[in-house]
Amino acid sequence: MPPKVGIIAGTGDLPLRLAESCRAQGREVFAITFEGENENAALAAAGIPSAKVGIGSVGKTLLLLKQHKCEELVLIGKFQRPSLGSLKVDFRGARLLPKVARATGDDSILGVIMAEFEKEGFRVVGADTLMPKLRADEGAFGKHTPAELAQSDIRMGRAVLDALGPFDIGQAIIVERGRVIGIEGPEGTDNLIARCAPLLHERGVGVLVKARKRGQDERADLPAIGPRTVQTCAEAGLAGIAVEAEGAIVIDKVGTAAEADARGLFVIGFAAKS
Amino acid sequence: MPPKVGIIAGTGDLPLRLAESCRAQGREVFAITFEGENENAALAAAGIPSAKVGIGSVGKTLLLLKQHKCEELVLIGKFQRPSLGSLKVDFRGARLLPKVARATGDDSILGVIMAEFEKEGFRVVGADTLMPKLRADEGAFGKHTPAELAQSDIRMGRAVLDALGPFDIGQAIIVERGRVIGIEGPEGTDNLIARCAPLLHERGVGVLVKARKRGQDERADLPAIGPRTVQTCAEAGLAGIAVEAEGAIVIDKVGTAAEADARGLFVIGFAAKS
Repeated sequence: MPPKVGIIAGTGDLPLRLAESCRAQGREVFAITFEGENENAALAAAGIPSAKVGIGSVGKTLLLLKQHKCEELVLIGKFQRPSLGSLKVDFRGARLLPKVARATGDDSILGVIMAEFEKEGFRVVGADTLMPKLRADEGAFGKHTPAELAQSDIRMGRAVLDALGPFDIGQAIIVERGRVIGIEGPEGTDNLIARCAPLLHERGVGVLVKARKRGQDERADLPAIGPRTVQTCAEAGLAGIAVEAEGAIVIDKVGTAAEADARGLFVIGFAAKS
Repeated sequence: MPPKVGIIAGTGDLPLRLAESCRAQGREVFAITFEGENENAALAAAGIPSAKVGIGSVGKTLLLLKQHKCEELVLIGKFQRPSLGSLKVDFRGARLLPKVARATGDDSILGVIMAEFEKEGFRVVGADTLMPKLRADEGAFGKHTPAELAQSDIRMGRAVLDALGPFDIGQAIIVERGRVIGIEGPEGTDNLIARCAPLLHERGVGVLVKARKRGQDERADLPAIGPRTVQTCAEAGLAGIAVEAEGAIVIDKVGTAAEADARGLFVIGFAAKS
């Protein structure tokens, strides 16, 4: 029997999709969800065995994963960096806290957490090892393709993200007519789009570009888009979305293409080295 | 008699300060203010001759500046990029519009506008030719200086801004403990600070770094700070501000240092090549 999978579940649609993909492959799963903003009621509703813990309850999380005999772990969904001031930690959490507080660029918080899991004997794997075809393909996802101006903005966006490579920032950028409107920081893509929307100059011109960061850990925090990203971009007045093929995750490819077609946006995958 | 100065006045304290500095030097001034968000009532209250125009009334602006016999022009204060959709233009404005719409990076909107003024025979000059000691000095402005961590975050901020050099973005950045929290786009520094505040991890750690963009036109849109920037940074929980000496503008140096001392922040000027 294939090893049981522990799902460390952030918010969004991905944890449930992963759980269902595992079950379709005959793999047992057990999910950890977190009190507060990222409770994942959808998992419980779909009958996925899960337990809810506080975000600082590291010892309890490890214990639950062991009790449920998980061998492989996947961190999936969105995680907000918690405010250290208000964080409630258990004993193991308290021991981890100084490392998390010191975590910066190369030694990211997710890296610290994954190392802790591995020290306990779990194998931390990427979601794409359990969900085939999760990563973006090259080429257009729907019927729309970027016009010449959008192509040039995509090139510029990629160049800016490349330039930011050494600094562990910038999985996403919005460019309009050769002008950078916003670069994603820890606020996430939805907030990036929201703050850029009023700064856009024209409707149907700007582009959202998403790519992996240089040195990106392939097991967590990959750039992701889905049907909801298309909706948000359409509402903000963007022309389309370009993602790094084989780098970014696309949640629900069929739904993403359908949404793009319905809204008149392009969604395109570009090769990492082109 | 020295040539009369036309002040193209954006928002903020700088236009009035410039007008007063000109008058103190015995130079006559005439200011253009703009209907809507950047009316500058302070100029009128201080008895500075001025006229209010619509932001798209280019022909009227040129006519007023000629009627008032202005020879030198200064663009000063903050300008919001207008939404082209709702912009009301006169004949000259309409002729300029396609150039403005096409303006990107190297050929910025302010560049297009300054070129138009120069074509009409005005000399567009930098505010610092009329306000001695406007640019930041090197070294600490008040009694506080950056701790080692803050110094390292300043170095990182400068490195990121340098990396963005080719892209005409990034006069400001916020870094906390080796982690980029936000890079300024067209939203301006106040909005950058506002959106970064909830993303900061600890109080009194992060730094704001401001520097000229590579290829920056020295006559307009220089990075600027002042007492209000110190207040905003203090409220956001930043440790201090670092600006490029001889590059950034400091509005009211004495007031800025006093505010920094009162709030416990450092404000420091760094040499462009160090």
